[in-house]
Amino acid sequence: MDTRDRIVRSAARLFLTRSYRSVGIADLCTAADVRKGSFYHYFPSKTDLAKAVVDLHAEQLRRRLDDARTDDPAATLLAVADAVGEIHDGFERRFGRVVGCPFGNLAAELSTTDDELRAHVAGVFAGWETTMARACHDAADRGVLRTDVDPDGLAHMILAQIQGLILLAKVSDAPSAGIAPGLRALITATLREGAPT
Amino acid sequence: MDTRDRIVRSAARLFLTRSYRSVGIADLCTAADVRKGSFYHYFPSKTDLAKAVVDLHAEQLRRRLDDARTDDPAATLLAVADAVGEIHDGFERRFGRVVGCPFGNLAAELSTTDDELRAHVAGVFAGWETTMARACHDAADRGVLRTDVDPDGLAHMILAQIQGLILLAKVSDAPSAGIAPGLRALITATLREGAPT
Repeated sequence: MDTRDRIVRSAARLFLTRSYRSVGIADLCTAADVRKGSFYHYFPSKTDLAKAVVDLHAEQLRRRLDDARTDDPAATLLAVADAVGEIHDGFERRFGRVVGCPFGNLAAELSTTDDELRAHVAGVFAGWETTMARACHDAADRGVLRTDVDPDGLAHMILAQIQGLILLAKVSDAPSAGIAPGLRALITATLREGAPT
Repeated sequence: MDTRDRIVRSAARLFLTRSYRSVGIADLCTAADVRKGSFYHYFPSKTDLAKAVVDLHAEQLRRRLDDARTDDPAATLLAVADAVGEIHDGFERRFGRVVGCPFGNLAAELSTTDDELRAHVAGVFAGWETTMARACHDAADRGVLRTDVDPDGLAHMILAQIQGLILLAKVSDAPSAGIAPGLRALITATLREGAPT
């Protein structure tokens, strides 16, 4: 792994398990085993590093969402629920607890104080919502959504539910195992009765 | 307003519009116009202050939830949606933007680094969920919920949706006006068709 990658991966871990502001440049350099000069060569500011961390997580999410796609739109939506659950099961195995969504954590902590980073994270959420909206429109077109459910509204609702369930699990120190079933319950409630689940 | 109240109210404003860690003791003393010695007399630690800020917001929320109670359980659930929307309309008027949920912000930023504060915030969420569950059980008992919707699951789902919608509005710098309709859409989707809304 090259130096830049090592910095980004160490930072991703520290931001997730602590918070953005609680991690100083000295902590980041120690964790990545680099000198300050080298750190600033790759990342002139902590915001630049945070954006690279967001991009790393966004690429992993994109792959998960790609893997969730099937020909059956209801199954695709439920597979997204499972994929999100698996991501947090993985964090729980690595870190011993639910640590929050990498995007949601930064969104909550920094939206009001770092507009460049806020916009960067908002871009990831917008892309995620577009992917969900595509699946919701597919589901509506194939007649598996309740007719009173708006596909774009549902995409936003699912994304909000993902963020809310993860946050509640984090603050309650609850197992990650509740996240996927919670999401499935929301999605199932919007499907027509008798639709295959 | 006495000194303690002044410190708590200034801190509430600073934590909401910035973040917990971005606000130092010196900032808090300046905003409340108190000396450090006086500050530490009332709040031996920043965690103690944060807990008092949480209690202030929790008392305001409790009053809002009390006001939302009616004899009609579906109307009560929808009134909670409107009450949450109004709280964030109020923040938007005061601060010029959606600033996030006072509880959710602290939950996201501090759950992994301050277990005492995490547990305190988790207690507020647990109380909130109990209030919602009471309304959801009332709705189920009166036959206005879809029969496939579990009342306790719905209470958790509504709380998660509240948190997620507020967080998405915060990161997207979107108007608070979208929060109440988003919540209403979730609640309406769980009511039986033909139930009074």
